[in-house]
Order: sequence, then structure tokens, then C-alpha cells
Amino acid sequence: MTYCLAIHVNNGLVFASDSRTNAGVDYVATYSKMFRFVWPGERSVVLLTAGSLATSQAVVNAIKSDLEDPDASFNLRKGKHLYDLASYIGGLSQKEQQQHAQALEKSNASPEASFIIGGQIAGKACEAYMIYPQGNYISASEDTPYLQIGENKYGKPILDRIIAPDTSLEDAARCAMISIDSTVRSNISVGLPLELAIYTNDSLDEPWHNKYRALSPMYKSMQKQWNEGLRQAFSGLPRFDWEKED
Amino acid sequence: MTYCLAIHVNNGLVFASDSRTNAGVDYVATYSKMFRFVWPGERSVVLLTAGSLATSQAVVNAIKSDLEDPDASFNLRKGKHLYDLASYIGGLSQKEQQQHAQALEKSNASPEASFIIGGQIAGKACEAYMIYPQGNYISASEDTPYLQIGENKYGKPILDRIIAPDTSLEDAARCAMISIDSTVRSNISVGLPLELAIYTNDSLDEPWHNKYRALSPMYKSMQKQWNEGLRQAFSGLPRFDWEKED
Repeated sequence: MTYCLAIHVNNGLVFASDSRTNAGVDYVATYSKMFRFVWPGERSVVLLTAGSLATSQAVVNAIKSDLEDPDASFNLRKGKHLYDLASYIGGLSQKEQQQHAQALEKSNASPEASFIIGGQIAGKACEAYMIYPQGNYISASEDTPYLQIGENKYGKPILDRIIAPDTSLEDAARCAMISIDSTVRSNISVGLPLELAIYTNDSLDEPWHNKYRALSPMYKSMQKQWNEGLRQAFSGLPRFDWEKED
Repeated sequence: MTYCLAIHVNNGLVFASDSRTNAGVDYVATYSKMFRFVWPGERSVVLLTAGSLATSQAVVNAIKSDLEDPDASFNLRKGKHLYDLASYIGGLSQKEQQQHAQALEKSNASPEASFIIGGQIAGKACEAYMIYPQGNYISASEDTPYLQIGENKYGKPILDRIIAPDTSLEDAARCAMISIDSTVRSNISVGLPLELAIYTNDSLDEPWHNKYRALSPMYKSMQKQWNEGLRQAFSGLPRFDWEKED
């Protein structure tokens, strides 16, 4: 399993992903699920992947091949809109899935993969799209300022409580870390390191990027303070009637 | 959908359930999913239900019929152990599901239902069991002091952080309320009123029981203080390096 998310706030985009993949609980490995494609001043794009590792790696390879091929009919640098890139990735994903569909069906395995792509193309607004395994896609919006792929449920409540369009990039990044930390605690198939990227609106440059391991001081202190803060919040909850009488 | 949970701590048991059922989002109704069966001094049992409303109502009806029937081979008052009751309910559930399986399969509907049963029989320890749709069952333990049925993911992180065997009954009850509140916020098919029952170890009596609606003062103040507490915990999280420089 995997958990990736993108948060779209007024000041830009935050991307976060875990790094665990597994083919059954007895084969667990660590892979990055975050890919950055940047042409400074021109366009800056981050891709997150979840689902079949074979499909998502093949899609990333196809993206890279198309970028190297001067005769490619389309590539990440050519699309005019971010949704053109989303549509292109959806197409690559479908093509890859169909190629192995028959063989995978026989072994009852799924080639499905989902993607999130976000970033900015010069002259256009900052955007984020989630691409379904079927190749179609949806964008984040003001009312739903975040997108999730993979194991999304454990980490959703905190996003619902904190994230709004006017949330700062730093708060959105902290919230993404908490959202992934909650998921790591509740689902053993989601694991560290946690990758975090922050794209500042209109920078059209490499997003800020960092990788946090379990022992990274920032991650450890985040975990500790969140745990303590939650316990404090919990201890402040109202008492039942009979507790007040004491 | 539904969300019910039972928490087993040293001092007893806490039960909580939402009250929304739906057969598609265009048919949403309110039903209690918590049933109490008490013979003071002898045994006190709480049953929670999730899944097909038809199956769970039929199981509850069968339980009541067996209790009224002096010739019943088994009923909730006869079992010597709580796991006998769990096994009996699993059997009733399987019987009911099989009766309608063929017809339901044609309309692509599921007769599956899950149950949680918890309480105490005189002379025995306080226990809680979760009964799978297949009729088999597992108990809560010291390492896993809670059981959930239905939409369990959104409400799990807070349980993982707070609940331990030595948690007080009141704290466990507050945690159950928060766990249901988080689920209500993130899944529209889980809804109020919230029912709460607290069984004190060795009381062998009617558990304390209450029903909270959205406007119940205790529920409102719980929501408000939790929200504020979370925001406060969030605002205490560590800063990124560049924020410190400001």
C-alpha cells in the first residue's frame, strides 16, 4: 500500500508521500513515489504514484523516454495546460495496464495505479490533479483543497479539520506530515521515509524537497509534539456529570 | 454504512455506535444499532450491529424470540461463557444470510452483517467479541483493547494513540465519542445520534447509557473543545528552518 497527498492552498502546493511498497506482507520494500520535473522559469511539475509498482514505474519510464525523444508527439514539456499532462499520464497508465491485463488477471493481481500531478506552467495558475486508474482525472478545488491516493482514510480527518485555501504552505506541510504519520501508525503497509515537497506559487522553480526518516530530528519532534498536543487536547475534554460531582 | 466500537479497559467496557443506515445515498434513515440485554446480578450484555440492516434486525428478532421461548435450545441467558453467546449470534447471522443469499446475489446486494458483543456473566471476566459476517469471532485483548465494525478507518488513529488497558472508563468513553465524531465528519454515511454505553466491571447491572444528538450540550462542547485542542496542538508543532529565521 501507499499513501500520497497533495494540498493546494493559495500560496502554492504541498506534496507528501510515504515510501513503502509491498507485494504481500512478506515482501516489503522502499521506493520513492515522488518525481519532480522542472524547467526553471517555464514549468515545475511533481508526480506522485500509488498502486501497482510495475505500472507506476513503467509510466515514469515512459515519461522520461518521451522527454528524451525529440520526435515524441507529446511530453511533459509540451502540454499547454496541466490537465493536458494529467490526460497524457492517464493515457500512459491505461496503455501499460492493458498490456499486462490478461496475464495479471490469470494470477489475480491488479495492474491498477493512481497518480497525482501538480505544479505550474508559466502563465497559468498553480493546479493539482488526481488521475484514476481508468485514466480520467479530477482537480483539487477551493472546497476540496487536497487530493489523496492509496491508503487515504486514516489521514483524512486531520486534513478535513485543518486545511483551507488560506492555510500557509508551512502549515499545510505540517498537516501533510501529521496525516502521513497517522497513516503509518494505523497501517503497517505505509512506511517511512516520508518525502515532502513544497512548491511556492509563481516560483516556476524546483520545489523545496526533503526526505524524513524515523530518526530525522524534525520528524521525531513533530511526532512527539503532536502526540503530546493530542493528549493535552484530550485531557481538556468535558467531563461527564458524575465526574463533576467529585 | 455504520460505525460501532467497543473498548475494553481494566475497569469495564465502553460501547459506542452511530445511528445512520443507508441503502444508497438517496435512502438514509436513522436506526439504533445498540441493544442491551440485562439480568441484574446474573449477566449484562450489549450488542452492536453493522452491515445489512435486514440481517442485523433479523438476528436481533431471533435473539428476542429465543429469549421468550422456554423451549429454546439456546438463548442469551443460557450460555455459560460470553464466547458461547458470540458463537450463537454468529450462527443466527449465518442462518439469516443463507436464507436470502440467492435472491440477494441476483440483485447484487450483500446480506453481510458484523456484530460486537460485550459484557459480563456472573463469575466470569468482562469480555468483548467481534463477530465476522462468516460467523466466526475474535476477542479484544490487552494489546488490542478495542474492536470496531463498519467504517472503522477514520476513527482508528485516535484509538491507537489514547486507549490502553489502564485508561479510565470515562476517558475511554470520551475517546469513543471523538472516534465517532471524526468518522461522522469524514464519511457522510455515518451519522448522529451517537449512542454510548458504559459497563462497569463486576456491576452485572444495566450499563450507563445515553444518546447524543448534534445539539446535545455535552456533544457540542466535546466537538468544540476537541477542535480547539487540535488546533492548539497543531499550532505547537515545530517550525521549518526558514520559519525560525524570521
